[in-house]
Amino acid sequence: MPKVLITTVPFGKKDKFPIELLKNNSIDYLINPLNRKLKPEDLKKLIPDVDAIIAGTEIINQDVLNSANKLKLISRVGIGLDGIDLNYCSKKNIRVSYTPEAPGPAVAEMTIGLIIALLRHLHVANSQMHLGKWNRHFGKRISEITIGLIGVGRIGARVLRRLKVFGTPEILLNDIMPDHSIDGSFKVKWTTKEEIFKNADLISLHIPLTPKTKNMITENELYLMKKDACIINTSRGGIINETDLYEVLKKGHLSGAAIDVFENEPYGGPLKNIERCFLTSHMGSMSEDCRTRMEIEATEEIVRYFENKKLNNLVPESEYLLQNNR
Amino acid sequence: MPKVLITTVPFGKKDKFPIELLKNNSIDYLINPLNRKLKPEDLKKLIPDVDAIIAGTEIINQDVLNSANKLKLISRVGIGLDGIDLNYCSKKNIRVSYTPEAPGPAVAEMTIGLIIALLRHLHVANSQMHLGKWNRHFGKRISEITIGLIGVGRIGARVLRRLKVFGTPEILLNDIMPDHSIDGSFKVKWTTKEEIFKNADLISLHIPLTPKTKNMITENELYLMKKDACIINTSRGGIINETDLYEVLKKGHLSGAAIDVFENEPYGGPLKNIERCFLTSHMGSMSEDCRTRMEIEATEEIVRYFENKKLNNLVPESEYLLQNNR
Repeated sequence: MPKVLITTVPFGKKDKFPIELLKNNSIDYLINPLNRKLKPEDLKKLIPDVDAIIAGTEIINQDVLNSANKLKLISRVGIGLDGIDLNYCSKKNIRVSYTPEAPGPAVAEMTIGLIIALLRHLHVANSQMHLGKWNRHFGKRISEITIGLIGVGRIGARVLRRLKVFGTPEILLNDIMPDHSIDGSFKVKWTTKEEIFKNADLISLHIPLTPKTKNMITENELYLMKKDACIINTSRGGIINETDLYEVLKKGHLSGAAIDVFENEPYGGPLKNIERCFLTSHMGSMSEDCRTRMEIEATEEIVRYFENKKLNNLVPESEYLLQNNR
Repeated sequence: MPKVLITTVPFGKKDKFPIELLKNNSIDYLINPLNRKLKPEDLKKLIPDVDAIIAGTEIINQDVLNSANKLKLISRVGIGLDGIDLNYCSKKNIRVSYTPEAPGPAVAEMTIGLIIALLRHLHVANSQMHLGKWNRHFGKRISEITIGLIGVGRIGARVLRRLKVFGTPEILLNDIMPDHSIDGSFKVKWTTKEEIFKNADLISLHIPLTPKTKNMITENELYLMKKDACIINTSRGGIINETDLYEVLKKGHLSGAAIDVFENEPYGGPLKNIERCFLTSHMGSMSEDCRTRMEIEATEEIVRYFENKKLNNLVPESEYLLQNNR
């Protein structure tokens, strides 16, 4: 009986279907018994006799993989692959799948909510009201500002489509592989990251964490931004240097930030002392429908593997190349 | 030289144009010297010798109007007329204008932000993160739920149009004067308020405060709602009974609420103790462009009046009739 370790939690909570899929296909499974994000040392103890992992965002590095004696497939619930050493998996003949389409709608919708909250200082008003302080904050509408999207892939493009109904005058876009099919239906300008830092009133990041994007935004880039601009990161922790962001915000630069992802999660660092920093706990993909779709797709890939069927969602070669500087 | 009292503050802060308009037309003006919402007793002292008021949401009742010896025009910055005794103005030959179109885009956009925040518990995560607590909250996307809009006029219809991009499956609508021209482009159902209370997962109010809507939503209506539904009020305080809302939330009913308007403002009541209640300080219309447009439109009406030109934005007869039960 093949054995699967499910590291991502919660799993099968909102919808039992992924669990039923495993049971109906006689696949033995163990759900993360620690009920928190596993550290490499936790994973090394759990991994030796499993044939496959249904994985979250935990680190699966060479050290962990060296303990995986039987592992043949990592099926990632979600899209980010920064935790997994893809090229070492390749060396050990461990295949890696993911669910790249599933999180998009949930992350994009949450991003729109964060954009409106930052522009109108809704989170600041809420914090103050709960402390008994009544301050009426002036804000801006989306149509009054220039928005910069860094990363216009599956998620960034969805954010862009949703922005249209709010009448944004100009959107600045940056992507390593610009998709010019977008250009016709929006007033967009493809440009450099530097131009976006300088000219956007709000920047939202929708890029993977790779050796090239790690610490992409430090104090230098943050100070290129307008004093009253704001920045959103719902992609991956580590792309914005958290210490630099804290220092810059503390000194009064930027009108706000919304950070959903952190270099080390759970996060409990100093950004919590910045009232105008909207902090959420890696909730981008956590809508019931998207999470369920991610879990089902990742589980179906496991079932296909053990039935010797063709895998649907193998991570493409390009993702391996992105990690080459690791 | 005609004299205008500007009661609403801030005024002319973000854009000096309304002030310049008054100066250029040799209109003497006094901006609310108390820099807070005026009470009737404040207003009675300031009102005796003014020819016109550029008004906010303060109470302008019979007692106040009896002190207004020279008043000929009240030009309201905004849309709500609940503070003004329209029929008594009529008796005293005081004309009343307003800016009904200007606040719409800002209120509608903020409402979308609040919808997403409530559905994904973003405000709760933010409060908890700032206390150092990492809880990942599951939420729903707009397309997963049934939304109920009570009031589908200038603002409600704008909310409806912006919802479309998020793919809402069904929207329940209620209005005293249903505009069926909307029906073609949306999957909507016009229904009773009671059906909306029972069936919507999220209710947003976009109605004026009138004798009929005052305390429209009490404990009874809140308990008709689903246990995990949520409610938004960006229209006027007093429509939802605040004490009842607090009691119902305290007892664990409803998954959230977003309240921007209060019976008495500034608000400092017990809702501040409810973490899942998103509180803002009457900020619906407070985007720079909408506020400026409101101030300019209200001031232009004043200028037209003193130039003996036809007024553009007189409050229609229907608004006087709505107050008849007062």
